[in-house]
Amino acid sequence: MKPMGPIPPTFAAQTGTLTIGGQDATALVAAHGSPLFVYDAALVAAQVARFRAAMPAGVDLHYAIKANPLPALLTRVAPLVDGLDVASAGELARALAVKPGSAISFAGPGKRDDELAAAIAAGATINLESAGEARRALAAGERLGIVPRLAVRVNPDLELRGSGMKMGGRASPFGIDAEHAAAVVREVIAAGADWCGFHIFAGSQALDAAAVSETQAATLALAARLAEEAGAVPPLVNLGGGFGVPYFAGDAPLDVASVGAALDTALAARADVLRDSRFAIELGRWLVAEAGVYLTRVVDVKQSRGETFVVIDGGLHHQLAASGNFGTVVRRNYPLAVAPRMGSTADGEVSVVGCLCTPLDRLGDRVALPPVGVGEVIAIFLAGAYGATASPAAFLGHPAPAEIVV
Amino acid sequence: MKPMGPIPPTFAAQTGTLTIGGQDATALVAAHGSPLFVYDAALVAAQVARFRAAMPAGVDLHYAIKANPLPALLTRVAPLVDGLDVASAGELARALAVKPGSAISFAGPGKRDDELAAAIAAGATINLESAGEARRALAAGERLGIVPRLAVRVNPDLELRGSGMKMGGRASPFGIDAEHAAAVVREVIAAGADWCGFHIFAGSQALDAAAVSETQAATLALAARLAEEAGAVPPLVNLGGGFGVPYFAGDAPLDVASVGAALDTALAARADVLRDSRFAIELGRWLVAEAGVYLTRVVDVKQSRGETFVVIDGGLHHQLAASGNFGTVVRRNYPLAVAPRMGSTADGEVSVVGCLCTPLDRLGDRVALPPVGVGEVIAIFLAGAYGATASPAAFLGHPAPAEIVV
Repeated sequence: MKPMGPIPPTFAAQTGTLTIGGQDATALVAAHGSPLFVYDAALVAAQVARFRAAMPAGVDLHYAIKANPLPALLTRVAPLVDGLDVASAGELARALAVKPGSAISFAGPGKRDDELAAAIAAGATINLESAGEARRALAAGERLGIVPRLAVRVNPDLELRGSGMKMGGRASPFGIDAEHAAAVVREVIAAGADWCGFHIFAGSQALDAAAVSETQAATLALAARLAEEAGAVPPLVNLGGGFGVPYFAGDAPLDVASVGAALDTALAARADVLRDSRFAIELGRWLVAEAGVYLTRVVDVKQSRGETFVVIDGGLHHQLAASGNFGTVVRRNYPLAVAPRMGSTADGEVSVVGCLCTPLDRLGDRVALPPVGVGEVIAIFLAGAYGATASPAAFLGHPAPAEIVV
Repeated sequence: MKPMGPIPPTFAAQTGTLTIGGQDATALVAAHGSPLFVYDAALVAAQVARFRAAMPAGVDLHYAIKANPLPALLTRVAPLVDGLDVASAGELARALAVKPGSAISFAGPGKRDDELAAAIAAGATINLESAGEARRALAAGERLGIVPRLAVRVNPDLELRGSGMKMGGRASPFGIDAEHAAAVVREVIAAGADWCGFHIFAGSQALDAAAVSETQAATLALAARLAEEAGAVPPLVNLGGGFGVPYFAGDAPLDVASVGAALDTALAARADVLRDSRFAIELGRWLVAEAGVYLTRVVDVKQSRGETFVVIDGGLHHQLAASGNFGTVVRRNYPLAVAPRMGSTADGEVSVVGCLCTPLDRLGDRVALPPVGVGEVIAIFLAGAYGATASPAAFLGHPAPAEIVV
């Protein structure tokens, strides 16, 4: 038996039939097909409210749409947040459908010239990743006859402790090394660009509030130092994100109230050069991961040499991360449930495998589940972020999953 | 400095500008866009010829289209092989465009009822993965009024030594345990189905000829034992595949001549019950991997804290396996080259990173490459199998890559 991660609280509390946004999961599959991603917009809104309640007034909330760029979800999230962060011209186009360009920022280490031009034309802020990109962006602005909105993404000389994915403190393709950032700020200001501030992202998927707070305080100090060095007040300091969600056994939720209290203290004590700056936190996963459930029908239940395999019509082509094949070193189980039997006692150990003809396609390894039969629906939680779009949908030629917002 | 895998011989021998099928790689990118997958049909044909020369007469060659299901490639491969193996109704439809149903077989642990029906209607062979699936397939045949063509996929009680991906010898979602296979054969024959034989697949991506030969001999012995037990001669024994290709430093090509010689001996000595059986080997990766090159333009070359990053407009959204995030435990480098500078001396160590805003997107980690500038083309080899379709194409909203056959 191997443990599963914790089912998100809204669902863990249920008994009987799983409901998502008040709707029966099995009925949703019957209506929309299997496999099916269901995103509960109310849960995203509740997470936004949790953020607002915890954070100091005046700290903006940005949604990093890479976590889940479904247009029907963006429509619901956009009015709740202050900005959208995008990572490609494709994401920019989706963001522009729901937010003005002035509320959109664009980060990514390999922006092509046509992407820079699209962002400038839309009035979006470009987070510059290198001195070379700064020059390409200035040239694109000149070609368009538009003053580009440019922020400097900084590769900090600090990193987020306990982060699932470290992105700072070392050589990195992301951002401009802190030791060279002020020079680029001066260069873009001198060139007549609209300098929008700093973007400093030190890591992601952190569950330790003290580590997040420590990083935020260090980020503020770094922004102040760079502003002094550049001789310019940053209009906005994007403090990055890094708020994690519990995926695996033993994970506990991030204490956002504690993060908010510490940030309040750190902001009150900030250097004078940042007195008139705005601040933003950019979150993707934390806002949407728990709001999504991946529903998939059981095609077969088979025994093999003493083990039971529950074979589903979904798989890693829709939920790659849950198979342990995307950014994780050791495969661990996401939380799963039998949709019609929430809260029931497990009656044995099964492995839940996808329909793909590869041993990699295992979404639950020796997990304890209640009885489940062919045709019934398995729910895989934490499917709201980095699910449908972060998986090899075309692999083995299966149909794309349906995605709905309830 | 970290090593790269070996560049496939056809390309390793080149100096100056990389050509694929006689065409200049940079010119192909200029004509078709970047990133671009290029598949050289002549290299696939040469690999087929190598197979035919090495294997005993009468051993059929099947192409497992999951490795690369591009229609333009299938059109070229289909006339060269005896059969196509598919893993979904989607792949079945593509295969039917180039081969009759009688030359197609369908394996996969989670075949839905509509997929079973599509295969039966097309006259394709279904490789049964469980007793439950056998009953569903028989029922589907009855509903359609068509005698289904059914083979039994066996979960062997042996496994392929040195295999990159073990698929036998243990509890498995794939196939029917050897100890129960004969009973299912008798059941489908008794039900009036057209029993087509066995499908026995013990592993994949093996480079050790002795291990492959040992597995093939054991597979023949297992097929004979099961045939005796079932009291029926299998019309076809699909011996599986497992032929690997060298991806990483230290890998050497599989000695197919040795495999063929050993198979010749094993077939000559086979049990009487298999005297009138046909045999097939099912290959995907081995046929197409080396024929494909992923070409991607350099967007930026940047320094960070003593390291050089070459940022490309491609990434793991097109070549997930090359980033080390698909089925590999330790990240190792695929072979890469600077397309206009084949055979040139490396002038330093660089990391080649994709355009995605994630640290996972690294396609060359501290590799030695000749100088390369913005706008030039990087080639990533071994892109013919499990590339475009086995990657999260929608991740971060970048355009799909172009794919061409030359």
